[in-house]
Amino acid sequence: MAEATPVRRRGRGGGGAARRAERTAVRFDVAPTIQRKIPNYDLHSEETLAIIEANAETVLEEIGVNFLDNPAALARWREAGADVRGERVHIPKGLARKLCATAPSRFVQQARNPARSVEIGGDALVLAPVYGPPFVRDASGGRRYATMADFETFVKLAYMSPWLHHSGGTVCEPTDIPVNKRHLDMLYAHMTLSDKPFMGSVTEPSRARDSVEMCEILFGAERMAQGPVMTSLININSPLTFDATMMGALEIYAEAGQACIISPFIVGGAMAPVSVVGTLTQVMAEVLAGVAYAQLVKPGAPVIFGAFVTSIDMNSGAPTFGTPEAAQITYGAGQLARRMGLPYRSGGGFCGAKLPDAQAGYETANSLNAGLLGGVNFMLHACGWLEGGLVASFEKFVMDADQLGTLHKMAAGAAADENAQAMDALREVGPGGHFLGCAHTQANYKDAFWRSELFDCKAFETWAEEGARDTQALATERVATLLERYEAPHIDAGIDSELRTYIERKKSGMPDAFI
Amino acid sequence: MAEATPVRRRGRGGGGAARRAERTAVRFDVAPTIQRKIPNYDLHSEETLAIIEANAETVLEEIGVNFLDNPAALARWREAGADVRGERVHIPKGLARKLCATAPSRFVQQARNPARSVEIGGDALVLAPVYGPPFVRDASGGRRYATMADFETFVKLAYMSPWLHHSGGTVCEPTDIPVNKRHLDMLYAHMTLSDKPFMGSVTEPSRARDSVEMCEILFGAERMAQGPVMTSLININSPLTFDATMMGALEIYAEAGQACIISPFIVGGAMAPVSVVGTLTQVMAEVLAGVAYAQLVKPGAPVIFGAFVTSIDMNSGAPTFGTPEAAQITYGAGQLARRMGLPYRSGGGFCGAKLPDAQAGYETANSLNAGLLGGVNFMLHACGWLEGGLVASFEKFVMDADQLGTLHKMAAGAAADENAQAMDALREVGPGGHFLGCAHTQANYKDAFWRSELFDCKAFETWAEEGARDTQALATERVATLLERYEAPHIDAGIDSELRTYIERKKSGMPDAFI
Repeated sequence: MAEATPVRRRGRGGGGAARRAERTAVRFDVAPTIQRKIPNYDLHSEETLAIIEANAETVLEEIGVNFLDNPAALARWREAGADVRGERVHIPKGLARKLCATAPSRFVQQARNPARSVEIGGDALVLAPVYGPPFVRDASGGRRYATMADFETFVKLAYMSPWLHHSGGTVCEPTDIPVNKRHLDMLYAHMTLSDKPFMGSVTEPSRARDSVEMCEILFGAERMAQGPVMTSLININSPLTFDATMMGALEIYAEAGQACIISPFIVGGAMAPVSVVGTLTQVMAEVLAGVAYAQLVKPGAPVIFGAFVTSIDMNSGAPTFGTPEAAQITYGAGQLARRMGLPYRSGGGFCGAKLPDAQAGYETANSLNAGLLGGVNFMLHACGWLEGGLVASFEKFVMDADQLGTLHKMAAGAAADENAQAMDALREVGPGGHFLGCAHTQANYKDAFWRSELFDCKAFETWAEEGARDTQALATERVATLLERYEAPHIDAGIDSELRTYIERKKSGMPDAFI
Repeated sequence: MAEATPVRRRGRGGGGAARRAERTAVRFDVAPTIQRKIPNYDLHSEETLAIIEANAETVLEEIGVNFLDNPAALARWREAGADVRGERVHIPKGLARKLCATAPSRFVQQARNPARSVEIGGDALVLAPVYGPPFVRDASGGRRYATMADFETFVKLAYMSPWLHHSGGTVCEPTDIPVNKRHLDMLYAHMTLSDKPFMGSVTEPSRARDSVEMCEILFGAERMAQGPVMTSLININSPLTFDATMMGALEIYAEAGQACIISPFIVGGAMAPVSVVGTLTQVMAEVLAGVAYAQLVKPGAPVIFGAFVTSIDMNSGAPTFGTPEAAQITYGAGQLARRMGLPYRSGGGFCGAKLPDAQAGYETANSLNAGLLGGVNFMLHACGWLEGGLVASFEKFVMDADQLGTLHKMAAGAAADENAQAMDALREVGPGGHFLGCAHTQANYKDAFWRSELFDCKAFETWAEEGARDTQALATERVATLLERYEAPHIDAGIDSELRTYIERKKSGMPDAFI
């Protein structure tokens, strides 16, 4: 599949949202959500998982979790049967798991373009870009604070990738826009520069409310009633702490029928024990409590079992990525999520490298492989992540996006039908022959092998004549080429105007805040 | 573990080879052979594997395999019950598999230093460096033909890596030495610059004979009688062709009790069908025939089920590496090898990249991950491979060698004992606390996380002050540092002299040949 083939489509009528999508004038192809046809890799034994689950229940009952500055949450827990002492909630064994039972095992997040709605859970794998970096980097401009213009560029690049199913959320922090207003601009960019699904704001409960209201304009009441249109990232303040900001956002989203990722954010050794099984125990306890709380707010609220966990360099205290311990936790959290029957968020193209160099490649590939085989359903940070998440890199974004194609191909598994068995080819060619020209190859070569749109596989001499470019240089060119080809998807002028009016009203209603 | 910590040891007596090893004055630590405590990843279904096995038998019977210029081999096959027509050997269904039954499921390859002998098969994973490149590359000298000095440098680097268990074979082609004599110098380098196990020559049956004779000098009759001291690479001339050079070497090694890897060499789409299952069928047929032949030569000969298979870029015809199809085949061949009860050779740090850049990192990590989880027992090309195997890269050698540490840690699995459960840490720290100072962290931090000796995880400012170096620049420095620290392991002066005399006699007995 070409990464950016604009397809001109003629409108042919239809109702409501479908009609709006049909009127879309320019379209970039996108691969369907990955449906895994390969087994998950179950690294940890049944015995180990059972120990983790039992210990997690002990943690919830004996140690408990903190719900800070949130009397309503404490009341909900008390009502549900927990032992609340101050802000500490002790959850009797079995209670959290029982509450989690109302969470759906899979759900559909609707996109503005209905063809791009995604299923989250089961065998599906949804790929979404990096989230959160305050800096950006490219070869020409180096490392610098991210701006709204950078944000828009990443949304465009994500829109044009056939392998990304999701536009993400805070693909970088637009630091040139006031903190209390940037969520409006970010949402507007996702809504208008792309037609893929996206995430809502979580930095203040009021901003979550704004996100819901903007979606009501974009999607209309009819589609809002059909299921979630946002999946937002609720980080747990590990260890074992649920703060009022994140819980406030969760409450608003859950009540509005929107999906949330309930995600411990852990650098092992700092926010969790240094051992893999100890960390998984804490992850399990935190997710049990968080998911249970979402169900207390609204039974049936769509949620995702999240795990952002990496290891630490014990010499410098710096987080490290693409390490064996991170992979062991990625695999383990996936096993725990499946045992709970919940969709699983983890993985991503993680690295600690400062540049999109060999270190970035090794570490990112290690992370992506663990995410794929570990059964991740929603992969945040799948592309663009650099320097431990401090930096969103334009070059790495297109490198990673290209590699995501390999996940699609791997997940499809290998066919074993008569054509795939290729006995005709083996008979035709025989010992000492060559398969390039045989009938089976001619019939199958186009789809036989995944092909990178970026990496070099030319003859050495050709490559040298063309400037002996490394991957970063090839990626710089690719970013420029893609942005030249970009065309925004059509949006109804009335809806666009209504969104702009909403944003203008909100912005003029409060003074700028930069912290 | 530090990569190059010379350990001064005092001799303390002992017999024969053990005594020689004890007298070794300088030693570099090496991690024990990996013993996997994690499950293998079984990508393909039982049904698919059964189809492949049945089709492979059909290939052997109906299509047959060629044994070229080798009347003795044809006679052996005829004697065993095969239908031999000209040089084509049709092997009745079941015969090859029956002959394979005498091959051992695991064996020990002895090293000069008995502490470095390696087990091959079962849950073990032995890591060996790149094999075969005619070119070398480094940042200062660029890409150039390899020389004997380069060869010696790679042997030294492999000796100093704690993660490499094996010195390999043709780590690069020493093109400045005549073709008919370079095997002598290569073996001498492995024997004297390292004390790890190594591979013998296969480019001519006479050179295999020389390899055995040099080993008889190095190891002595007593140790030679105890089991193999070489594992050599016998490539099948895919599709389905066994040439006289390789078979001649195999015959000599098998008769001398030495181990061989029986390895199809396949670029899918060229030397095998474009489909994964079709390629695996051919791999299975070729290995069945090759292993069966080794057992015909000498029942019980130690052999390894080999698979060097990658995909092709159908536009340029160039081989591609680190692709999903290559991974699917790596996993599948591992499953087939385990079903046969044979040690499995595959994997390696493969890439098509021209430079040790991001592409090299992604592709290599993809390959290494598939090799680890695919159950590889003997991983050739585990480090140093660049540009599709045309180039041995000094920088990539140390990058890959560093990454091999992650395989050791991953393979060890995660402990789940009381200490690993870390309930004391969770109780001590509690909600909102910090684990860095807790007792459990203090007791466990040293071994908790794998730590790269090469990659950067410093603070951005420190990294920038130190020159903002990329991975290649860090690796250039590391190569230099390692070579400064290198000291050769002790070798008995009499044995060394005998080896030199042997080589001198062999070299003076024939004119130089450069083709």
